[in-house]
Amino acid sequence: MIQAGLIGATGYTGEELLYLLLRHPEIEVTALSAMVDKPVSMAELFPRVSGLTSLTCSLMELGDVASCCDIVFLALPHTVSLTIAPFFLARGKKVVDLSADFRLRDTALYREYYGVNHTQESLLEKAVYGLPEFHRDEIRTATLVANPGCYPTSVILGAGPLVKGGLLGDGPLIASAITGITGAGRKAALPFHFSEASGDLRAYRLLNHQHTPEIVQELGRLGDAPVRLIFVPHIAPLDRGILTTLYVPVAPSVKERELIALYESCYKNEPFVRVLGGDRLPRVKEVCSTNICEIAVRLDAANHVAVVVAAIDNLIKGASGQALQNCNIMCGLNETTGLM
Amino acid sequence: MIQAGLIGATGYTGEELLYLLLRHPEIEVTALSAMVDKPVSMAELFPRVSGLTSLTCSLMELGDVASCCDIVFLALPHTVSLTIAPFFLARGKKVVDLSADFRLRDTALYREYYGVNHTQESLLEKAVYGLPEFHRDEIRTATLVANPGCYPTSVILGAGPLVKGGLLGDGPLIASAITGITGAGRKAALPFHFSEASGDLRAYRLLNHQHTPEIVQELGRLGDAPVRLIFVPHIAPLDRGILTTLYVPVAPSVKERELIALYESCYKNEPFVRVLGGDRLPRVKEVCSTNICEIAVRLDAANHVAVVVAAIDNLIKGASGQALQNCNIMCGLNETTGLM
Amino acid sequence: MIQAGLIGATGYTGEELLYLLLRHPEIEVTALSAMVDKPVSMAELFPRVSGLTSLTCSLMELGDVASCCDIVFLALPHTVSLTIAPFFLARGKKVVDLSADFRLRDTALYREYYGVNHTQESLLEKAVYGLPEFHRDEIRTATLVANPGCYPTSVILGAGPLVKGGLLGDGPLIASAITGITGAGRKAALPFHFSEASGDLRAYRLLNHQHTPEIVQELGRLGDAPVRLIFVPHIAPLDRGILTTLYVPVAPSVKERELIALYESCYKNEPFVRVLGGDRLPRVKEVCSTNICEIAVRLDAANHVAVVVAAIDNLIKGASGQALQNCNIMCGLNETTGLM
Amino acid sequence: MIQAGLIGATGYTGEELLYLLLRHPEIEVTALSAMVDKPVSMAELFPRVSGLTSLTCSLMELGDVASCCDIVFLALPHTVSLTIAPFFLARGKKVVDLSADFRLRDTALYREYYGVNHTQESLLEKAVYGLPEFHRDEIRTATLVANPGCYPTSVILGAGPLVKGGLLGDGPLIASAITGITGAGRKAALPFHFSEASGDLRAYRLLNHQHTPEIVQELGRLGDAPVRLIFVPHIAPLDRGILTTLYVPVAPSVKERELIALYESCYKNEPFVRVLGGDRLPRVKEVCSTNICEIAVRLDAANHVAVVVAAIDNLIKGASGQALQNCNIMCGLNETTGLM
Repeated sequence: MIQAGLIGATGYTGEELLYLLLRHPEIEVTALSAMVDKPVSMAELFPRVSGLTSLTCSLMELGDVASCCDIVFLALPHTVSLTIAPFFLARGKKVVDLSADFRLRDTALYREYYGVNHTQESLLEKAVYGLPEFHRDEIRTATLVANPGCYPTSVILGAGPLVKGGLLGDGPLIASAITGITGAGRKAALPFHFSEASGDLRAYRLLNHQHTPEIVQELGRLGDAPVRLIFVPHIAPLDRGILTTLYVPVAPSVKERELIALYESCYKNEPFVRVLGGDRLPRVKEVCSTNICEIAVRLDAANHVAVVVAAIDNLIKGASGQALQNCNIMCGLNETTGLM
Repeated sequence: MIQAGLIGATGYTGEELLYLLLRHPEIEVTALSAMVDKPVSMAELFPRVSGLTSLTCSLMELGDVASCCDIVFLALPHTVSLTIAPFFLARGKKVVDLSADFRLRDTALYREYYGVNHTQESLLEKAVYGLPEFHRDEIRTATLVANPGCYPTSVILGAGPLVKGGLLGDGPLIASAITGITGAGRKAALPFHFSEASGDLRAYRLLNHQHTPEIVQELGRLGDAPVRLIFVPHIAPLDRGILTTLYVPVAPSVKERELIALYESCYKNEPFVRVLGGDRLPRVKEVCSTNICEIAVRLDAANHVAVVVAAIDNLIKGASGQALQNCNIMCGLNETTGLM
Repeated sequence: MIQAGLIGATGYTGEELLYLLLRHPEIEVTALSAMVDKPVSMAELFPRVSGLTSLTCSLMELGDVASCCDIVFLALPHTVSLTIAPFFLARGKKVVDLSADFRLRDTALYREYYGVNHTQESLLEKAVYGLPEFHRDEIRTATLVANPGCYPTSVILGAGPLVKGGLLGDGPLIASAITGITGAGRKAALPFHFSEASGDLRAYRLLNHQHTPEIVQELGRLGDAPVRLIFVPHIAPLDRGILTTLYVPVAPSVKERELIALYESCYKNEPFVRVLGGDRLPRVKEVCSTNICEIAVRLDAANHVAVVVAAIDNLIKGASGQALQNCNIMCGLNETTGLM
Repeated sequence: MIQAGLIGATGYTGEELLYLLLRHPEIEVTALSAMVDKPVSMAELFPRVSGLTSLTCSLMELGDVASCCDIVFLALPHTVSLTIAPFFLARGKKVVDLSADFRLRDTALYREYYGVNHTQESLLEKAVYGLPEFHRDEIRTATLVANPGCYPTSVILGAGPLVKGGLLGDGPLIASAITGITGAGRKAALPFHFSEASGDLRAYRLLNHQHTPEIVQELGRLGDAPVRLIFVPHIAPLDRGILTTLYVPVAPSVKERELIALYESCYKNEPFVRVLGGDRLPRVKEVCSTNICEIAVRLDAANHVAVVVAAIDNLIKGASGQALQNCNIMCGLNETTGLM
């Protein structure tokens, strides 16, 4: 059994990850830590794990966590992982960090979008971006995985085949995404009050969302060339899920059937990406509570623009499910264990 | 034009009341006050009043409010009205208080349910309970109206005809009510976060909700005899509206058609109560954004229990609409003006 | 491996049951039948089973189903099971019927509520009511299990301890229940159109819902005495879940702590019933997508009425999960396999 | 009093229009017709008009409608208006057609997108496209107004200032829109069943929605030059409202403050368009149940793309409210009467 610790167990991401870990046949959860005043029973905090565990969560010493874990998941607010990840790495533990702290290679961008100086530049070089569909081999040997953001997961899976295939045409890639409200985290705030959010649709952080540089960096690496991106996230009244529609300029010679063949080929061995055929289009409801990303691609032939639609569950493929997928790979387990 | 002031203008109730007042042809809003750091434009705070007003809301001196108003609406948290209402009454102003501060005649119950001593016992004697369907004549001459709570409005309108008609049988009256989430007020709190409330149903304050003594008092007055009540409120994932189902023991001799005739007769001249005939049952959606209460009554003849279903919009007939209805009556205006 | 067939695989109940069966480690789904024009891939019909199965569903001959199954689940409209169940029973197959066809022992009531004559009276005697918490031993040896209705499951689990414990006082038991909209089945109908149902609350089939006689029969058997029931179901805008609040007259001598102790004792070994302690009250969100029933009990001591709140997922503990639980028991498997 | 008839009174659009007309101080509704088996009371069909009207709706002879109306609103399925509008126009009546039948000037496109031949080409020349913000003068003297589609209203109001101002750069205009579910009309269909639509997000009619040629035509006329458009509509789980995000290539020299100034100037006298300043972005909730369109514009200076967000209520500014606005203009009334 792999022994796993989870730090930051009381948010939506932590809850979802705990729920996945507890049902994983080859992983044992041996440490749960969070900023709590006193130990809390996880079964009381999150009743759906009742019957699965009698574990409590407390504010643990890092050393106590390290002493009983092979791998540690950090489900912490951005900037906190910076100070904690090194501790575990120094003691030979594997780390999957669900925050943004080890995603951006350019520390100036990190400072610009997250408001603090990056204090662990040396670790950035060791960190592997944990999108298995494009970086599986690196993840296999990684000790520090930077788990992708929810929007970046949907955008990179959606645009990746075009970028990697060298099919980008002129002009910026446009990503228009819609998210459910768990994306905002498990804390009370008026904009996410039911009476404010129900019956509402709105755009937010228009043109300056913190996931923008992460997407630009990763698509740039995939295509080995700079990518221009316009990213606008929207909020809709549902609990969980992201639907991202991409408008990608492509070379004029490309045919729609070539695009579809490219996507099918790119993802044909991927257990968690489902390229839809025929008339079907992705639906959030179909991927909710799963680690699946549904994708469909169409061509606007007159304008030479590929339209790609991708759907994920923001808490699973967009966070905790992908973290577990990375853990499976890092630990030499079957990649899909605990995720079907 | 009647000149009206509104104190506590920034909550859901205040917003709704302002929206109603601004479209009222014979009322002019002359003062808006709330606990704000600096003056805020109402059009910015509540965009749906844009175009209707350029008023700002600020933390006003009470004297400044009094100097420009004939009537003052208090949409304040419970216990705050206690200290403010006397000021306006002393200056000859009419007051409609939307809080619970002048509803309970028994100050011991007030202390038990609201946690503070009642400091204005003398005013309690002058306060009129503002349910026009049963107290219209008193409201006409009142200077202080205690606007009913949302649940009590639905329960008293639902059970009133039976109680007043002397048809109560043995055993407690059971009120099982379901509310939308604006009932919790316009403030961030985790239980009302969209991701917590959507897809959820729950009971709360089971057997000890603060509206219980208000209902018991008012039904007792209507029937001139003590009433026993079991009241359980529930929360469902919708924005606004209350659906209350009452289970009322009745005398064994009563027939269903007599019950229906009683309700039709009791409410036949009421502009805001709609007794449904045939197979129709009340729906929250049909009363939403209106001052209407829909009611249907059925008899379980084997058990001698009348089942009454009542639907209202908690923010309108359950709060702001009823406040305006009371204002219309107090000021000698047509009762329905601004409410159709 | 147990070989299982599912007839009526294309509704919400069938979908949920298929999803559970496909992940069950000791059951193999060998036949899927429904009224379809041509064979349909289940992965296409219900994308969330993609990756779990390549099975298709077609309109199969009953003999073909029988030839490859040990147990058959009937997720069919009421009255259809009557003609199909005997076929499988005659061939020595076990049957779990999710319809109401074998629940009511009084065929006159069946005719009254379901509109057809019961043609299989002899099978009624063999049928076992599939609520494991109260009939586990009979289910173990049953060949035909009548899987309980969704509302009856919540009401009987909620009131069962009081009834069985002989604590019922005078007067009818009142069950006020709220359901999500999957309860209406997977077929288009205007009342369940999103735009009609969202933002709405309503009661329906007031005093004449078809689950009433089922509850009365089963509670009567548990207590060995007739039970009087007033049952009013309500609809709220959520996908799935039932919250039932029961108002049960109890003997005047009963104390609240005795009630709580009774419930805890009654369910202490039940894997799927969670009696909540302290201040906690059941929430639909906590039982959603699980086979759990959450229950809390309180006493209105002044009125001698126990108030019991019970929450289930209508599609799981209220239908498919309970069907699988029954199957596990009938087949000698661990009762919780595939349900945690 | 203007006498108005409404044909097709039983859909969501008809209901909303009736509700607006009944409260209009200078319009009297004199005829209500729809494909109903027998006359139905509007108060029974749509309870929120109870108290406002005792009118019934029946399948009326066109002549009877004509004999009592000055203006007729056609809230009919596409292709039906073709055969009905000429009747009223021949009798000197004004017509506001809410269908698409008189919007497209190119009958080949009409046949392509609506599947039938256009039989009234001569009327097409008389028809005026009813978007008052850009065609007020023509509407004033029109006898036949083609009321715009819901998506086109949001897209044209959003992009109009850029197009008319000659600021379009190279490349297609991208319109990514999200709608609530009333957009699908008031008829039962499985995709709009609450249990299918709640918790879901999806794109539909990707690249071939029937509103595409309408937008292209109208923007082309505004700018006097062909416009290229990529339009993708999405569905989210809310009752009503459209949020449209436009990605519009602009000339490289344009500054963001110029864009904002252009929008403010373009709409400064428009009673129903609200250009948001500062950090504010449009919210569907703020325009719901109003005839308002909220708009914000930003510039992605690096990519020379203007991002415009527009929000409307699809049933009001996107249909019935705009129809009434057109009626007010055609009849010489104040344009905002009955719409504030």
